[in-house]
Amino acid sequence: MSDRPTYPTGPRLDAIFTATRALFDLPEGLVYLDGNSLGPLTHAARARVTDEVAAQWGAKLIRGWNESGWMDLPREVGDRIAALIGAPAGSVVASDSTSVNLFKVLSAALEMRPDRRVVLSDSGNFPTDVYVAQGLLARLDRGHELLVVEPEDVADTMAARGAEIATIMLTQVDYRTARLHDMADLTRRAHDAGALAIWDLAHSAGALPVDVTSAGADFAVGCGYKYLNGGPGAPAFVYVASAHAEAVRPTLSGWMGHESPFAFDLGYRPGPGIDRMRVGTPPILSMASLHAALAVWEGVDMADVRARSIELSELFIAEVERRCPELVLESPRDPQSRGSHVSFRFAHGYAAVQALISRGVVGDFRAPDMMRFGFAPLYVTPRDVVRGATVLETVLRERLWDRPEFTQRQKVT
Amino acid sequence: MSDRPTYPTGPRLDAIFTATRALFDLPEGLVYLDGNSLGPLTHAARARVTDEVAAQWGAKLIRGWNESGWMDLPREVGDRIAALIGAPAGSVVASDSTSVNLFKVLSAALEMRPDRRVVLSDSGNFPTDVYVAQGLLARLDRGHELLVVEPEDVADTMAARGAEIATIMLTQVDYRTARLHDMADLTRRAHDAGALAIWDLAHSAGALPVDVTSAGADFAVGCGYKYLNGGPGAPAFVYVASAHAEAVRPTLSGWMGHESPFAFDLGYRPGPGIDRMRVGTPPILSMASLHAALAVWEGVDMADVRARSIELSELFIAEVERRCPELVLESPRDPQSRGSHVSFRFAHGYAAVQALISRGVVGDFRAPDMMRFGFAPLYVTPRDVVRGATVLETVLRERLWDRPEFTQRQKVT
Repeated sequence: MSDRPTYPTGPRLDAIFTATRALFDLPEGLVYLDGNSLGPLTHAARARVTDEVAAQWGAKLIRGWNESGWMDLPREVGDRIAALIGAPAGSVVASDSTSVNLFKVLSAALEMRPDRRVVLSDSGNFPTDVYVAQGLLARLDRGHELLVVEPEDVADTMAARGAEIATIMLTQVDYRTARLHDMADLTRRAHDAGALAIWDLAHSAGALPVDVTSAGADFAVGCGYKYLNGGPGAPAFVYVASAHAEAVRPTLSGWMGHESPFAFDLGYRPGPGIDRMRVGTPPILSMASLHAALAVWEGVDMADVRARSIELSELFIAEVERRCPELVLESPRDPQSRGSHVSFRFAHGYAAVQALISRGVVGDFRAPDMMRFGFAPLYVTPRDVVRGATVLETVLRERLWDRPEFTQRQKVT
Repeated sequence: MSDRPTYPTGPRLDAIFTATRALFDLPEGLVYLDGNSLGPLTHAARARVTDEVAAQWGAKLIRGWNESGWMDLPREVGDRIAALIGAPAGSVVASDSTSVNLFKVLSAALEMRPDRRVVLSDSGNFPTDVYVAQGLLARLDRGHELLVVEPEDVADTMAARGAEIATIMLTQVDYRTARLHDMADLTRRAHDAGALAIWDLAHSAGALPVDVTSAGADFAVGCGYKYLNGGPGAPAFVYVASAHAEAVRPTLSGWMGHESPFAFDLGYRPGPGIDRMRVGTPPILSMASLHAALAVWEGVDMADVRARSIELSELFIAEVERRCPELVLESPRDPQSRGSHVSFRFAHGYAAVQALISRGVVGDFRAPDMMRFGFAPLYVTPRDVVRGATVLETVLRERLWDRPEFTQRQKVT
């Protein structure tokens, strides 16, 4: 698969993804290569939120909790996500943010390994995951160590220090380079060492086939607003392996995770299984948007998504390397070792991305010098990819990155 | 103020609240006395969410974080709430759920009083607050005790065990009875004992004048979807007194609370002041709805809200007691000791509330036998109150609570 791709790979994939493209409400003419940061609006989410506001909240008011299905929504969203990550129905719930969900499962994992003091992560983890661990370990104040190694050293570190490791805590796809961890292999090594395995699937869910069950992951968390297109800040998700689901004692114990929230008992009793991972009242408008957006996955085979993703990213790499030799590929060259985005290093990357955006090609930038382009097969087409590379070539040839309107930093990229 | 009210109290209040009533998008003819559970839709929130979905997320996509102001929204919502609770601008942020926010501040309070082992709460606290404390204390495993006394015993308990108490953790207005704690007095007693004071303002913010600054509260949390009308599950808020804002070390440390979220450092450095109470990416659609809904408070004096609230609740009590002598007032009779809702006990309360709802009067029920009616002055009128009492009388006289369609329990009330 690492040879130069032929374009298109075939009419079958074209037909599938032409159909899914029609489900998205994308601005005309925009090449959107940033769905790994914020997925676009779907027609379904747009209609659903309008309905949720006016016909549910507005008209039913408090009755919405029963009649509009708000109470069950986090589980229903969870089940839709479960189908995308190889998890059984009832093992995933949508709730809170990825950071808060990671806190829940890391706390649970440490409690399950009380005699071990090391949390093993790597420098390719998304920073908030590392922050969450730092906050929890400092608060516990029991001599835990957060060990952050280089991604390629995770396996060796487990071999060397396995007996100390309570859990590994890794993001499967590196948010910068798209480097892909072998989840099954590292989980097996963790288990061989007596440790648990927590996986962050923020850049995996909806991006490539994931199978938390066959990989044996103990816990997983992930994001609702990237490849799952739930909308800005959409609720995140949390998965707990069935072997642990009834044993976990939540540190964040709130009424929505109680066995009987409306009994208003003063003693916390965890709800059945994954329900106990819920805490407070969920943000329904954002949750409903995510629920609706997940409908686009119906009938889509993740193997087809992966094939298309590789087709798109390989095409982009080939086009960019041919047109823009000054850019340095930072992502793994082997597509089997990559997620669904591609990064190139360029000293003027920030300004170049701003220039691209001004010409209708949206990628993003990650400090210090990484230009990042996401390829969400559901709506990104081979034609988009070629146009993206063409505009990038123009930005470089015309040195648009040197113009003051593009070099000036905004708060967020 | 505890005498029978005259109705109406005056044309000035009528004019103010006729104007605010017009800002709400309430179903025609509905008497909505459950805004203490879920506030209704405003025209502003309806328009805002539509715009946020289509014109911001849909059209601007990732640029929304800068251009649509999403990044600053939690602080802007916080500042609007700050104005309602006597907090300075910059001391409140909208974030997560009330439960999660309580976890943040309770954890911070315990860290600020490392030698004390008692958290003092009362049985009138909302159960999730108690659950959150139970989860945190169990996880810390340092011999903390959660002491839950009767509301009237809080002051005496502080006198007796003050030296052990790390913090009091109380809800100002009892979610069942509306019994109102004297926040300033109990906070002073806590401070005199060397303890901190955490207040849950879920049934206070937007319901009555609150002044966290003059009361000296150390921390406060509250709800965005009750009197603040943010929509189902709208983000909650958290207040940290300025004396502590730069000292708190967050246990829930996530990237949105980092000093520089987009530097992607691997070491957590708390953001300035209240910003560090943020954790993950906020649910923007729900957050924007809350932001828009808060506009209805512009130019509204909380003293007027309180006067109108007392007018409405006194009128309701008088009408109900006159028409329905079998109901027993559970709320304090003195309106100065009450929040903005009123509860009556009735053995068939559950079915009676269902019957009321079927006749267009929405109250709610809290086990085992409490019928609860909220009076949000911004949209509840004296006419609504009289109609509510009249329909309640019908429900009782015609024994509608005995009909099977009303006695059958739904999942949520």
